[in-house]
Amino acid sequence: MISDKMRPLVENNSAIRAMFEEGKKLAALYGRENVYDFSLGNPNVPAPLAVNKAILDILNEEESTLVHGYMSNAGYEDVRDAIAHSLNRRFGTGFRLENILMTVGAASGMNVIFKTILNPGDEVVVFAPYFMEYGSYVRNYDGVLSVVPPDTKTFQPDLKEFELRITNKTKAVIINSPNNPSGVIYSSETLESIARIMKEKEKEYGKSIVLISDEPYRELAYDGAKVPYVTPFYHNTIVCYSYSKSLSLPGERIGYLVIPDEMDDFQELSAAASIANRVLGCVNAPSLMQRVIMRCVDEQVDLESYNRNRELLYGHLTEYGFECIKPEGAFYLFVKTPVDDKEFCQFCKEHRVLMVPGSSFACPSYVRIAYCVSYDQILRSLPVFEKIAVAYGLGGKKEENR
Amino acid sequence: MISDKMRPLVENNSAIRAMFEEGKKLAALYGRENVYDFSLGNPNVPAPLAVNKAILDILNEEESTLVHGYMSNAGYEDVRDAIAHSLNRRFGTGFRLENILMTVGAASGMNVIFKTILNPGDEVVVFAPYFMEYGSYVRNYDGVLSVVPPDTKTFQPDLKEFELRITNKTKAVIINSPNNPSGVIYSSETLESIARIMKEKEKEYGKSIVLISDEPYRELAYDGAKVPYVTPFYHNTIVCYSYSKSLSLPGERIGYLVIPDEMDDFQELSAAASIANRVLGCVNAPSLMQRVIMRCVDEQVDLESYNRNRELLYGHLTEYGFECIKPEGAFYLFVKTPVDDKEFCQFCKEHRVLMVPGSSFACPSYVRIAYCVSYDQILRSLPVFEKIAVAYGLGGKKEENR
Repeated sequence: MISDKMRPLVENNSAIRAMFEEGKKLAALYGRENVYDFSLGNPNVPAPLAVNKAILDILNEEESTLVHGYMSNAGYEDVRDAIAHSLNRRFGTGFRLENILMTVGAASGMNVIFKTILNPGDEVVVFAPYFMEYGSYVRNYDGVLSVVPPDTKTFQPDLKEFELRITNKTKAVIINSPNNPSGVIYSSETLESIARIMKEKEKEYGKSIVLISDEPYRELAYDGAKVPYVTPFYHNTIVCYSYSKSLSLPGERIGYLVIPDEMDDFQELSAAASIANRVLGCVNAPSLMQRVIMRCVDEQVDLESYNRNRELLYGHLTEYGFECIKPEGAFYLFVKTPVDDKEFCQFCKEHRVLMVPGSSFACPSYVRIAYCVSYDQILRSLPVFEKIAVAYGLGGKKEENR
Repeated sequence: MISDKMRPLVENNSAIRAMFEEGKKLAALYGRENVYDFSLGNPNVPAPLAVNKAILDILNEEESTLVHGYMSNAGYEDVRDAIAHSLNRRFGTGFRLENILMTVGAASGMNVIFKTILNPGDEVVVFAPYFMEYGSYVRNYDGVLSVVPPDTKTFQPDLKEFELRITNKTKAVIINSPNNPSGVIYSSETLESIARIMKEKEKEYGKSIVLISDEPYRELAYDGAKVPYVTPFYHNTIVCYSYSKSLSLPGERIGYLVIPDEMDDFQELSAAASIANRVLGCVNAPSLMQRVIMRCVDEQVDLESYNRNRELLYGHLTEYGFECIKPEGAFYLFVKTPVDDKEFCQFCKEHRVLMVPGSSFACPSYVRIAYCVSYDQILRSLPVFEKIAVAYGLGGKKEENR
């Protein structure tokens, strides 16, 4: 019954989602408090109070047929205008509402981009470790993923390998900073280098190459770390944004694309993206949530909750002997595994600790631990992590300190 | 910059959406009250009061991280369960939550179906007149639309022509009752005939053929007309539902698929559909609206408003001499044009009356008039329609009565 393209997807379903479903089963079996589910990037921090207040105000102040009705496929003009102005205030950009296309979250935004620009066989370059769904999004339009191997020392992009992977078939490059799963942030210097390489390759091959900046974690940066805005570095940049994490609204499916004026064929490209949003069946981003964004455009979740989790988990795991770079952003630890990552995940699952193997991010021998969970869950999980460390003979700093 | 597949879509953008944008321009130019926009199926009847009440109650009673958070890609279990039970109560079906997949509206639901089942070259049969976006949805997955010509006497499906169009490449058939644009409803006898033909063809070709029942207008039936539920007629039926019209929530993008147990390869099919929902970028249907549906599962908009519009417009247009079958459901009149339909639409636009040519529904020489507008707009438009009738020498009943 199902299509040939769906077959491998069904056979090899998302490890993240499989873990999520597994977590629900285990919680039903052993009680939620006895399962340490670090599998899914599902924020535990509630949406800012301003979100629910905005909803109430909108229902009081705006017409039902406006709030719940159709609008242009690209979204409400006033919402897009508010977002453009907010970006301009924060990053010194010069966007107009015409540069903003409201989308059903970032995942849908990426599908809109790929539907808009990919011909079959076109290559899209990604840097490992990367969010594995990128592969599905690209293959939806018969594109081919080209993976730059990870630099597991720094988890920064390996620019030499990157340069080698841009061919005359390359249509786009995806970057994701702050990064899922490593938590690293790309510096201005890194972005400059990426832009320089891409400009040279555009000239060499005489074609446009799009830089897609997937930014659901933009607002989640710790210790005052700066996340440079990408569009000033490179003319053919599309920003793919989501409020899933910045406002803790992952289920609401609300985000946007920024398609700047300076992109090649801007008019045609933005018209096409708006049509792609419609024909892929989204039609438009959810209307009430668009109107909420207009009123909450500069709001943000309580970052300190995530930061406390980060410090607690990073501090203890490294103390137990696990190896891990300290994440500057997002809400994941990407930890080296003492054995094969799938075997390690299986062992941890037997201790009711759920996380996602690095293989799922094209970076085996690591494991992703999502710390967007309650502080209490982390506290309760620590003895289990210590037991796991001991079982693998990690010993770590504790040993050294003796 | 844009892909080869997007090029024709940009060059030949939706006539409906083009009219919608045109209407906004004309309204800005001449004032909203001087533009008679009948182009878009955007409900003018507000959502039932229960919807906004449900939103307030949910925000008061349920956790932010539940209301706005991720859930299984198929949707919240309790919401799906409530929908299954509501259908069972109303139609005597035997659905479980596992048969319901929450989607980003019906348009996205159809994309999920086609992503799940279509291989390149597979044919999908539709009955003209049909909602032209079906073509885009099918082509997204390299399927081919096969169109059964319209029977303009009754606008019921031409079953002889239908039978001829099912080949060994046919993977699916779309029906849409109450119909956009004609407003006709398919009777039980019609559904029985369609089912009989499809069962025979399944046997003849030794393959599964899916009947897709696109039902955004199910609740909009007048004069007590019954809209038979489709799944009991044919084992391989998928229902594609939307709350856009039944609850006046078109901008919210909320609907569902029904995938019954008796479908061939049910387990694999429903797993694949859930994955398609995710990898197409929707991930899940908007969360707050899912929870609203649970509390409003048996609510419905004020149908009498549409019925008054229907009677007023149908009565006067036929009086002016326009030919049109009386719609039993939905909120469109499908009117015969005295000249070429595009020429007619252009002429009407000069009188600031906006509607969509029948060519856009593979049924030229007709025009679709969406009467989901204020009663007042219809009242004000009547003299203009009369003027148009006179200009084309229609005369009609008025003449006869003299």
